[in-house]
Amino acid sequence: MANISIIGLGAMGQALAARFLQQGHTITVWNRTPGKAVALAAKGAHEAASAADAVAASDITVMCVLDYAAADAVIVSAASTLSGRVLVNLTNGTPAQARVTAERTAGLGAAYLDGGIMATPPMIGGEYALILYSGSKPAFDAHAGTLQELGAANYLGGDAGLASLHDLALLSGMYGLFAGFFHATALVDSEGIRAGAFFKLLGPWMSAMMGELPGYAEKIDSGNHGINVVSNLGMQTASLDNILTATKEQGVATDLLDPLLELFRQRLATGSADEDISGIFELVRRKRIAGG
Amino acid sequence: MANISIIGLGAMGQALAARFLQQGHTITVWNRTPGKAVALAAKGAHEAASAADAVAASDITVMCVLDYAAADAVIVSAASTLSGRVLVNLTNGTPAQARVTAERTAGLGAAYLDGGIMATPPMIGGEYALILYSGSKPAFDAHAGTLQELGAANYLGGDAGLASLHDLALLSGMYGLFAGFFHATALVDSEGIRAGAFFKLLGPWMSAMMGELPGYAEKIDSGNHGINVVSNLGMQTASLDNILTATKEQGVATDLLDPLLELFRQRLATGSADEDISGIFELVRRKRIAGG
Repeated sequence: MANISIIGLGAMGQALAARFLQQGHTITVWNRTPGKAVALAAKGAHEAASAADAVAASDITVMCVLDYAAADAVIVSAASTLSGRVLVNLTNGTPAQARVTAERTAGLGAAYLDGGIMATPPMIGGEYALILYSGSKPAFDAHAGTLQELGAANYLGGDAGLASLHDLALLSGMYGLFAGFFHATALVDSEGIRAGAFFKLLGPWMSAMMGELPGYAEKIDSGNHGINVVSNLGMQTASLDNILTATKEQGVATDLLDPLLELFRQRLATGSADEDISGIFELVRRKRIAGG
Repeated sequence: MANISIIGLGAMGQALAARFLQQGHTITVWNRTPGKAVALAAKGAHEAASAADAVAASDITVMCVLDYAAADAVIVSAASTLSGRVLVNLTNGTPAQARVTAERTAGLGAAYLDGGIMATPPMIGGEYALILYSGSKPAFDAHAGTLQELGAANYLGGDAGLASLHDLALLSGMYGLFAGFFHATALVDSEGIRAGAFFKLLGPWMSAMMGELPGYAEKIDSGNHGINVVSNLGMQTASLDNILTATKEQGVATDLLDPLLELFRQRLATGSADEDISGIFELVRRKRIAGG
């Protein structure tokens, strides 16, 4: 059993602390605004008087606060006690923010792990929770067993920005999926078809279409978008154009898929009609799309 | 065994004819430009001299041509033989085009089924092929067994536009999924992470996130976006904003997800911060998004 401090008692911090308490660890908690520790204290958590005291109470401190401004304020106020400790920062942010915070924390003599939680608070400790980590490898190796209690712990490398990068990338994939769902459901809604009834078709179809993605990944990694093409960019540009024309005819907004058609057209204009649509990756990866 | 005519011998028409031949049916084929029937003739298909002859040769004609302009040209040229026949039109188009063609065909005394093929040519006759149908119910009931040989046959209703509507909606959902994949993969690519390696995380994650969609469908159908909210619109707007800020910092195009953030912001501006993101459906369903 470990001594663990939890800083930040929003919904996620509460879930992390509750899970560690349930596992039998000695838990110290602190929150910037008071009154958040009552339920956890009733289950045996100690409430620290300050962030510095919370850090001093344990070998490892897990921080999950609103944003990196709040995280940095915690680090400044706990600067005197961080040396020789492990700080695991699960606050949402960008890779650039994670790297700045990693450098600041290292300057104070602490080992730093940045993390991205791919779960909602009720999922913490359950079989579907995934937490991505990057930063200090020794710190991860020393505490991997403890961190696994929160969810599957996936270490991505020494660059502290990698967990955030992967976290944001996974979420962006999810948001694309959601955007497709909303467009598709609005299109059939225009003829009075209910979302739940339509999902009986849409769900299995989208799951099946996930099967196309490894082929696109292979083309992206090879840089060759002309191999094993079943439905080429020329055909798919016509198909997507047809979808958006019909969407307009049905009085439904095309906004969510307009940029994809614009990318198809731009790629087509480079003479790539016979290649696969994965070629648009070459436009997305580089910069904001001119005229997009 | 049935007498079936296939009009249009592109990759899909060839696959449909080959599947029916394999099943032992008597097949007649016709294509606007000659020379496409050689392989099928070698397997026993008869080549008709005209579209009218092809229609006259069979009880049921399955047409899969380039677009509705081509489909309408076939119908005009076969007008003299269509009466009393069944025409199954699997050409890609919009609901509005399907309805116009249904009316024209009915005026010529034929029963009309419009269809949308949710499969690539190599998938025809396999376990993952799905074909959506709408239009004449008696025609579907009479030929369902034959049509099932091409792939699972799903009849959606008497309005001939419904198959196309569902076809386009399913494809739009797929394109959203693809857009999310391209954005996510480009984001990690900015730090040299390979698409195939990243997909080991992205694939299971996107499959897991499919599990969120039935909940959104329920909220859409109830019109109440404030029930069972785990992560509300306010939090998710901040999260998506953070994703796109990081995407820009990494030098990657944000275009594919910009419209979703714009929708989040517009919905947020209506005072819906505590509701679920499914509320954006109310913006998408109605019209092109003002200022989007």
